[in-house]
Order: sequence, then C-alpha cells, then structure tokens
Amino acid sequence: MATRRVRIGIAGLGRLGKSHGLNLAHRVVNADLIAACSIVPEELEWARSELGVESVYGDYGSMLDHAGLDAVFLATSSAVHAAQSIQALDHGLHVFSEKPMGVNVEECRAVEAAVAARPDLVFLIGFVRRFDPSYSYAKKLVDDGAIGEPFLVRSQTVDLDEYAPFQVRFVPTSGGIFLDMNIHDIDLARWFLGDEVESVYAIGGSFVHPEFESVRDADNTVALATFRSGKMAVFGVSRTAFHGHDTHTEVTGSKGTLKIGMTPAKNRVELFDSSGARVECVRDFYERFSEGFLAEAQEFVDCILQGRKPTVTARDGTKATEVGFALTESFRTKSIVRTY
Amino acid sequence: MATRRVRIGIAGLGRLGKSHGLNLAHRVVNADLIAACSIVPEELEWARSELGVESVYGDYGSMLDHAGLDAVFLATSSAVHAAQSIQALDHGLHVFSEKPMGVNVEECRAVEAAVAARPDLVFLIGFVRRFDPSYSYAKKLVDDGAIGEPFLVRSQTVDLDEYAPFQVRFVPTSGGIFLDMNIHDIDLARWFLGDEVESVYAIGGSFVHPEFESVRDADNTVALATFRSGKMAVFGVSRTAFHGHDTHTEVTGSKGTLKIGMTPAKNRVELFDSSGARVECVRDFYERFSEGFLAEAQEFVDCILQGRKPTVTARDGTKATEVGFALTESFRTKSIVRTY
Amino acid sequence: MATRRVRIGIAGLGRLGKSHGLNLAHRVVNADLIAACSIVPEELEWARSELGVESVYGDYGSMLDHAGLDAVFLATSSAVHAAQSIQALDHGLHVFSEKPMGVNVEECRAVEAAVAARPDLVFLIGFVRRFDPSYSYAKKLVDDGAIGEPFLVRSQTVDLDEYAPFQVRFVPTSGGIFLDMNIHDIDLARWFLGDEVESVYAIGGSFVHPEFESVRDADNTVALATFRSGKMAVFGVSRTAFHGHDTHTEVTGSKGTLKIGMTPAKNRVELFDSSGARVECVRDFYERFSEGFLAEAQEFVDCILQGRKPTVTARDGTKATEVGFALTESFRTKSIVRTY
Amino acid sequence: MATRRVRIGIAGLGRLGKSHGLNLAHRVVNADLIAACSIVPEELEWARSELGVESVYGDYGSMLDHAGLDAVFLATSSAVHAAQSIQALDHGLHVFSEKPMGVNVEECRAVEAAVAARPDLVFLIGFVRRFDPSYSYAKKLVDDGAIGEPFLVRSQTVDLDEYAPFQVRFVPTSGGIFLDMNIHDIDLARWFLGDEVESVYAIGGSFVHPEFESVRDADNTVALATFRSGKMAVFGVSRTAFHGHDTHTEVTGSKGTLKIGMTPAKNRVELFDSSGARVECVRDFYERFSEGFLAEAQEFVDCILQGRKPTVTARDGTKATEVGFALTESFRTKSIVRTY
Repeated sequence: MATRRVRIGIAGLGRLGKSHGLNLAHRVVNADLIAACSIVPEELEWARSELGVESVYGDYGSMLDHAGLDAVFLATSSAVHAAQSIQALDHGLHVFSEKPMGVNVEECRAVEAAVAARPDLVFLIGFVRRFDPSYSYAKKLVDDGAIGEPFLVRSQTVDLDEYAPFQVRFVPTSGGIFLDMNIHDIDLARWFLGDEVESVYAIGGSFVHPEFESVRDADNTVALATFRSGKMAVFGVSRTAFHGHDTHTEVTGSKGTLKIGMTPAKNRVELFDSSGARVECVRDFYERFSEGFLAEAQEFVDCILQGRKPTVTARDGTKATEVGFALTESFRTKSIVRTY
Repeated sequence: MATRRVRIGIAGLGRLGKSHGLNLAHRVVNADLIAACSIVPEELEWARSELGVESVYGDYGSMLDHAGLDAVFLATSSAVHAAQSIQALDHGLHVFSEKPMGVNVEECRAVEAAVAARPDLVFLIGFVRRFDPSYSYAKKLVDDGAIGEPFLVRSQTVDLDEYAPFQVRFVPTSGGIFLDMNIHDIDLARWFLGDEVESVYAIGGSFVHPEFESVRDADNTVALATFRSGKMAVFGVSRTAFHGHDTHTEVTGSKGTLKIGMTPAKNRVELFDSSGARVECVRDFYERFSEGFLAEAQEFVDCILQGRKPTVTARDGTKATEVGFALTESFRTKSIVRTY
Repeated sequence: MATRRVRIGIAGLGRLGKSHGLNLAHRVVNADLIAACSIVPEELEWARSELGVESVYGDYGSMLDHAGLDAVFLATSSAVHAAQSIQALDHGLHVFSEKPMGVNVEECRAVEAAVAARPDLVFLIGFVRRFDPSYSYAKKLVDDGAIGEPFLVRSQTVDLDEYAPFQVRFVPTSGGIFLDMNIHDIDLARWFLGDEVESVYAIGGSFVHPEFESVRDADNTVALATFRSGKMAVFGVSRTAFHGHDTHTEVTGSKGTLKIGMTPAKNRVELFDSSGARVECVRDFYERFSEGFLAEAQEFVDCILQGRKPTVTARDGTKATEVGFALTESFRTKSIVRTY
Repeated sequence: MATRRVRIGIAGLGRLGKSHGLNLAHRVVNADLIAACSIVPEELEWARSELGVESVYGDYGSMLDHAGLDAVFLATSSAVHAAQSIQALDHGLHVFSEKPMGVNVEECRAVEAAVAARPDLVFLIGFVRRFDPSYSYAKKLVDDGAIGEPFLVRSQTVDLDEYAPFQVRFVPTSGGIFLDMNIHDIDLARWFLGDEVESVYAIGGSFVHPEFESVRDADNTVALATFRSGKMAVFGVSRTAFHGHDTHTEVTGSKGTLKIGMTPAKNRVELFDSSGARVECVRDFYERFSEGFLAEAQEFVDCILQGRKPTVTARDGTKATEVGFALTESFRTKSIVRTY
C-alpha cells in the first residue's frame, strides 16, 4: 500500500526559500521536492547538493512543465508572486505563495480570481503565524470561548535594529513598513476578530534611522483599526529593537485576555548574573517561526492529499493587502483612511 | 532639637480619603494630621476613632481657619477640587489635590494661576504613578540613558469588570473614560517623552456593558497621540478585565524598551496546580499603588519642610486634562483632534 | 479618646537597628520610640537627630529603668540577645529580639523559660519572613488548602558575592552559614509543614572563597531534613550570587505547589535591550524584606495593645537553633545527624 | 550524487517507540526506516500503515538479519535493552538504545564492553535531555564560561499525578523512582559538573499514593550527591504534580546561575482571566522533549554518516545507573551510600 505523495517544485532559494526547501526535502511528511528554480546559479547548485533535487531550472515556466509536478512553492521576490501564482494555477498546479500575495490590491484580486477559477486546486498564502503552535493554540482557545467574545487585538512586529540599514533599499519594492511588516498583524486581527477593517489611522517616524524618512517610510509606527462591527485593533512596528525579533499579540474579549509571545525568549534558559535575571531572545522571524514554517508546508501537503481547502484563503491575502495600503496612505496623509 | 512638622487637614474621607488619612496619621514622617473635614458625619467619626484626629469639620471653610494649619489634603469629589485648591492657596495653605485638578481646562488654568500667585506654597497634584517605586525607577533609568532617546510610550489603565456597573453613573461627573482613567497614562507619556501632545485619535466601544454607550462613553478604548516632536503614545483603557487591575506602561527608546508592571502580580507567590502556573493579580489601584500613595504624601511633606517644589506641577495637571478632553472629543466625533 | 500607645526602647543601632528604629519612630502605628541604647556614641547621636529620640543610653540596664518604658526592641549583637531578652522580661518589659534568640540551644532554652515565666508579656523573635506579605499570603493559601497537605519545603538564602569577604570574620560569632543564613529557611519549613525535624544531612564547600574553609565554614551548602512524620525539606545557602539577594521557597503538597519569590525582582520594571529581556534584582535582605520588617514591628505592638500572643514563639526560636546546630554538625562530620 | 543514507530497524513500538518511529520515518534527515519489530501484532500493522515500513518482524533476531540494515533503534522494555544492544553490536549494527542501558550495573558494563569491542560502530544511549535545545544551549553557555566554574546542579523530574497509579506496577521492572526518573537528572549533573558522584543520600515517602510504599518505592523524593571534587547535586522527583510535567534544572557556578525550564509552559500563550495570569504546562515528557527526541535521532544518524562518536557514551549509561542504584540503596537503608 503506497501512500500518495505530493511532488513539489520550489521557486526562489534565498534565505527563506532555502528554509522552505529544507523542510520540503526532509521534514514534511508525504512531500517529494523534485524540482527547483532560481535565477541564481549558486542557489541551484545548493538545491542539488543540500536538498538532493535533481531537476533544477533557471526558468520558472520550464519548471512548471516538469513531468509529474503536482505543486509549486513560491519564495521568489514579491514582485512576481501574483504572476507566478496565476501561471501555476493555469498549469493545474497547487500553489503555496509566500506573502505578499501581490504587490497591490489589483494583483491580489487577480490571484483570487485565478484561485476561484480552479476549485480543484489548493492555494495557500504563507501567513505563517497562523501555523505557529502558540498562535494556533490561542485561536483554538478563543474559538472554545476561553476569553468570551474577542473585541480587541493588539499585535506588533519588531525586528532587530541591525537589519534596519538593509531594509531601506527594499522599501520601494516591499511596499514599506506597513505592507512588509504589519501584514501579518493585520491578518491575525482579522482572524481573531472575525471581521473586516473599516477604517485606519497610522502614525510613525524615523526615530533612529532618518534615511527611512527620505523614502517616505518610517522605522517605528503605531496604528489603530476600526472594524465594521466596531471591534478594534492596534498595530505596531519597530525596525529598531536591540533585544530580538519581538512579534507578539494580545487578544482581549469579554471574559479575558490572551497574550501570545510577550517575551520572545530564545529557549527555556534563564541567566542569573551581574546583569540581573534575564532570558536571551530570538534573533529573527526565522528563529521565532521555524515551527510555523514547517507546519504551513505540512498543511499545504495535507490539504492536497486530503482534498480539502486551507482555512486561510486568497481572500485573506487580498484583505490584508487592502488594509496595508490603507495604513500606508493614512501615515502619509496624516488622516483617517477608510478601506475599500 | 525639635524637627519641624507639617500640620495637615484632610478633606474628603471616602475610600481614597481614608487611605490618605491613614498614611498621614501613621506613616508619613514629620506629618501631623490635625484636622479632617467631610460632609458625611460617619466619616468624621471614623477620623476621630481611627486616625485620632480631634478637630473635625463639616464645613471646608471652617477647617481652613483651624489654628496652626499648614496644609490641606484634598480627596473630595472632583467637582470641588479646583475651588477648594484655590481657596486653600488663598488662605496661605499648601495644597495636595487628588486628580483631576479640575473638571475642565478652565478650572485647571484657574488653579495654575492661583498656584503661580503663591510661589511660597507647595502645590502637588496626585499623579500617584510618578511616585510608584517601579515607575520612578523606570524614569531614573530613562534619564540615565538606559534606553537611549525615548520616542514611544504605550500605557493602559484597566479595571476589574465587577466595578463597571458602578462606574456608569459617575460618567457625567468624572468626565468619562478618558478623563477618569487615561489621565494618568497621559501624564506618564508627557513625563517619559518630555514633550506635549499635538493631536490625538481615539476609538472605543461598549463591548461588555452597553449602558456606557447610552451616556456617550465606552468600556474599552484605544487611542493614539502624536507629540510636537513627532514622538508617539498609545493609550488604552478597559473597564472589563477579570484578572485584576492592570495598569502597565512601555517606554521605547533608540536603544531599548522598558516595561513597567506588565503582569500585575499581587505579590511574589506563584501557584502550580491543575490550572497551570499562575499568579494572582492586584484587585484595584489601591492595592497596586499603595506604596505610591505613601510616597506622594511624603514628598508633599518633604517639599514643604525643605522649601522645594515637586517635579510634578499644576501645569502638568492642566496639560493632562487638555489631552483628556481632546481624546473624548476625538472618540465622540470619530475624527483627529488637535490639542490647544 | 486616647488610643493606648506602646513606649519602646531600642537597643543596637547598626544597619538593621537603624532600619528598625526608623520604622518604630515613623511607621509603626501606636508605637512611640522613646529611648535608644548603643555602645557606639555616633549611633546615639543618629537616634537623636534622625529618630527624634531624646533619651539615649550607653548602658542597656539603664535603659530598662527608663520611666514608662513598655517594651524593648533588640538589634544588638547575637552574643547578647539571650541575656538581654531575659533581663528585659525580668524587668517586666515586652521583648522583640532579632534572630538568633541565642547563640546556642542552652541560651535559647533559658529565654524560653523566661518567656514562660512571664505569660503577661509579649515576646517576639524576628523571623521576618513570616511577616513578608508574600510569605504570609502563601501560608494563608496553604492553610486554606490550596495545595492540599504540604509535605515538602525547599528554601534557600542567597547573598551577593560582594558581601562574602566581610562574612568570614563573623563566622565564629554568627555560628556559621547554617545558623546565620539557614535559620530562616528552617523556621519556614517548620511553619509550613507543621512538624519537627528529626534528622538532617548537610554538604557544602568553599567553591569561590577558600577562606571559609579555614574557619570550618562554607560559601555554598545544601541540606536535607527529614521530619518526624516523614515530611521533607531541602535547604540551600549561597554566599556567592551575582544577581542579588535570592531568598526563595517552594512548598509542595498533595494538590499543588507554591513558589515564593523565585526571581527576586527589584520592582516591576523589565528591560529589553542588547542583553535580552531582564529584571534587576534586590541587593540584600533589607531591600527584599523591608515590608516584613515593618509588619513584624507592627505585629509586636498590636499584640501588646490587644493582649494576644504572636503566632511565632520562643519555642520556634529554640527549635530552629537546634536544627541549625544539627546541620553544622552534619556538615563538619559528614554524617546524618539526629536533632534533640 | 547520492547522499549516503542510514537504513534503520526499530524494535518496540509502544508510545515512545511510535514517537521515535515517526521521527525516523519522516523527520530525520538521511534516515530510512526500513524494518520494525514488535511482539504486538497491532504495532506492526501500525508500522506498515503509518510509517510505511514494509518489513516487519515479530522476532528481534530475524530483524537483525534484514538485508542491508545499518542500525537498530531500541525502544523495547528495559529488561531487554542490554541483551538487544549487545546482540546488535555483535551483528555489526549501530545501536540507539533508550534508557536505561541495562537494568543493573552488570548489564551496563556488559554493554560498555560490547561497545568497546566494536569501535567502528556508533552506540547512543537516549539521554534525551542533552539534545533538548534549551539544555544543549545551557551546556554551551556553561562551556563558554557564562557562569564561571559550575559547582552545584539542582535537577528534578516531575510527572502528573494522574500517571502515578499506572506506575506502581512498573516499579519492580523499572527499578523504582530513582532509576526510572532521576536517571536523567544524574546524567545532567555529571554532564554539567564534569565529575563523578562519590556518595549520595536520599529520602522520600509515599505522601499521596501509599501503594508505592508497599513496593518499597516512593512518590516524592529528594537526594543529595557529593562529587569527588566536592561539587554537589540535589535531585528531586515527584510523581504527584497537578500542573504538568515539570522537569527543570539549575546550574550554579562561581559567576552565576543558569536555570532551564523552570516553568514548563506548554507554549507562548498566557491567559489572563478570573484565575489570574497563567500559562498552561506541558503534560508529559513526550510533549516537553519532542524536539530532543528528534535531535537525538538526527545525531545518531549524523554520527554514523560522518564517522564520529556521540559525546554521550556507554560509560555515561553505566555511571548514571550506578548512582541510581546508590540512591535507591540510600533511600531504603536511610544511610549515606558511596558509589562504586
């Protein structure tokens, strides 16, 4: 009795792509990573030697034609996510796309339409936090009524200051701080509150790295979102932390509050020395969400094999993008902005 | 050699007044509580038996004439704070006033003027958090540069849900959720950031107790404040917590973040039982700030005896009130509001 | 109506005596500190100027004759505790004695006998941890059945390394590490378990400061105690911590575990900076137990005024001392030692 | 270029065996689980359907003859560990053995001899905590000098009370509480201190489940160990916790203390509700050490492929067993026991 397996081709083997590749090659049950695509020859060489992938491609379209391919895993640059997703769906392939689903709302809607046109295929957008064990446990607690009816989410994404200088040049392509970093917080707020954002107000500044201001971006921001039902969210971003990558989220309901990841401890070790009592913190989202990256890839494969659809949908990708653009506009115009 | 002592009369002996009275009678060094005033006869009886105060008054003006009185301590209803402060200053008495300094900005300015007219007298507004050992320690750390230049404060005031039903009727006199509860957070943000609020935006709702909506108030709110320099604050209030009184504050600067009171543990006891690993929390602000109430009374007496002025001033009272009104207006008009 | 007040003379004004003196002069309700005694003239001068005490004595016996004295507070050197306690009781005075009650078991029993001979007087031994808000709260939880039947106590006393060099010379008079430092842990174990120690086994070494070995003492020790009912305790001491004074205690019962003071945080401030997420710790037992010192003095005064006896008794002082000597003997002989 | 892979047969598919099997089948890089052996037919059926193992055996000897087998993974009952290890080594197979290595010291020494006779083979004893990310990180910190010279380890193993009734009948075969549960703590103490135990003293009792006494065992124990250099360890076990599986360890050195896993939080979620502020805890060692189980299996495979030996050796298995027996003897004879 042979279990069915999913044959996957990965596109994009930068740092995040390599991480996905290692999971697909070695850790995801019932997945066979059979092809890889990159425009960087060294990355293809790495795929051969470290992932044991024999079929490598410099051209995405060629990989889609690889015989027996079931699915693609996109970890390419944001600019091509939408086009590559649509192209793969048109080829009859299941698609996992890293966030963002597209670089603007129109692209997102085009992907949504392509997904809708192929109800036989699985499409999964990489909102990795939903697959983190702590976040998914918190969601289950909320669904079980542990905090009553949730009405407020506070969620932040905070990166180490040492990465900030490298982020400035990505602002034009990443869409800036709200689209690049708050997109996950937006998705979490929608997920926990079960509602859509109606209006937003965002403020921020370049408090540590003035160069962000010159590209109309910021290094620290805070924002409020009002949902249609009146529920609320507070979003924060910092590019300038010194203790570690500090993604955390609070969900408040009518009977209690849940907090997820408040102190981003690297592990279960505490040090008691002349600096006091302390924990070291995770350095980046790779370290924080390593379990989530594995879980989302497994969910993708399981959905394909079990003929079911992920709970996170293309529509979620579009809605989060809409709110990200609204936050950006609010920050730049210093006004309250209504979403579409 | 007799140390000089300060002879104090207290006005108002409700729950907070009683707490102040006990401190003044028994704990504050170099203080003599010699008179008490209340419109409630039982409270005067309590002052005699529990505080050992022999001279009690039903009329505030009469107490001001008490021979040898140096200072008054006001824990009366908010509506009379301004008038009683001004009256006492005019009598040449030092004044401690509970917050708010006045119920509107005009009253606050009148108190400011009265204080300015008597530079020989000490006036202290009861922004108790500044005197809490953790908050004052945090301020010292910030002043010492522990987190670099501070640019973001997040501060919240959260009360137990069981008190909410009793708060509805106080909304008309307390000024509502922003003036009654966020006033301390506003003061802390100004204190830590060393700057004045330029504009605010507040949202909120009656998520648990709909009766707050009927008095144009809310049971949970969040708000953003932009300071003149571009620095930022996030304010939160909840009247509907189940774990305890949860006042906490974060201050983020260019080199790190301080958090004050994140988990409002009642004491140093942890319980490990079938509910997991837990701490019980403080029930109310009396329990959370008992040390602060003593420290502010001591500071008041020390300032009088040492001929110096408190670092918190009447102007701080006015500015916090201005912001509180701006938040209220923003919440009610659903618009960004600039402060005076 | 004049409340009765207790007129107290303090003996010994070293660091701990000064701390007690300030509480008695300013913070303890219904206490009048009217006399002070010290063999150090500067300390008497300090009592005059800082405590406002007018009657000062170089001789303990003379202070006992001070007209109207109700009680004495002993913070003298350990060597004279027993003799001074007995002398005061014989004078008809209530006695608060710092620990230890005596420097050997015979002295303790003599004090016990003197206390028994004067059932009209209050005698309180300064087992301050019982009066710490967290420890007393934990005791109440245990008594209320929160952890079922308690059967295991783990308790440690840990001091900053920087004090160690000064402690070496005190070993001959203090009785060494078990009597000087574990005495509180022993008392807590007896208190929580409600039983007497039957046998002990102690090990230790001079791991950081070899000079302790030369006086037959240690800088770090651990010990086991078996109680008559079979209940158990683990005692630890370290003189060589770098993070702070780290007294903490665990109580395990048939339904759960309580932990008291596990991380000896200085206050409610957390720092997030390049060292990670940390809290600073209390430096010494003065800082950790400042509330307990006040509460025990208040309890002493309240017992006198209310005509009741403290729950901690002279017998508790004797029993803890017995166990302290047994631990010392066990450590030195490397054998299991049965208590009396 | 084909990476070499390790072909593994697993023996024993109880709960722990299943967990190992899933790792070997799906998660361990470069491992092929090609055979399984069990005396329980249902377990072999499970291996076929869930692990995709085609060759299953009811007889261990037959599996050893499976063509192309490189290594065996033993998760059988403790009674056969030693014999099966020796048999596999004699067959020229690499061996992973769950702890204990043998049920008495003689068996352990026989395994040691068999391992020594085959220096070409990898033998790994499943001291899983060494492979837990927090423990291995702590070891690295200690090796890097973060706490100076370590001299004291306190380590405990604590299980949920609900498992206790099932443990009574295993006492005769498991060797009792010290061998079954403290064996990991003993190994950790030896690992962190780099020294061998010279003498031990253990006490304990059946405080919750009297049936343990009838089999000369206990449900809660504490013990002291003195090492040859004078370093110290404190070991604790409880079978009667209600909050979760609470394995934790402290390592104290001349410059600081490390604590590992003090509060056994299930994940990064905190709940704030009417019970206070709490975290839920891991239920058992499977949940606590799931990462360690994967890491030790990966280390086994990597050692085989890279021709190196694990840092944990057969000698470690023997030494921990020696100490476990000494603790048992001490507990039963109520005396200090020297190890071999």
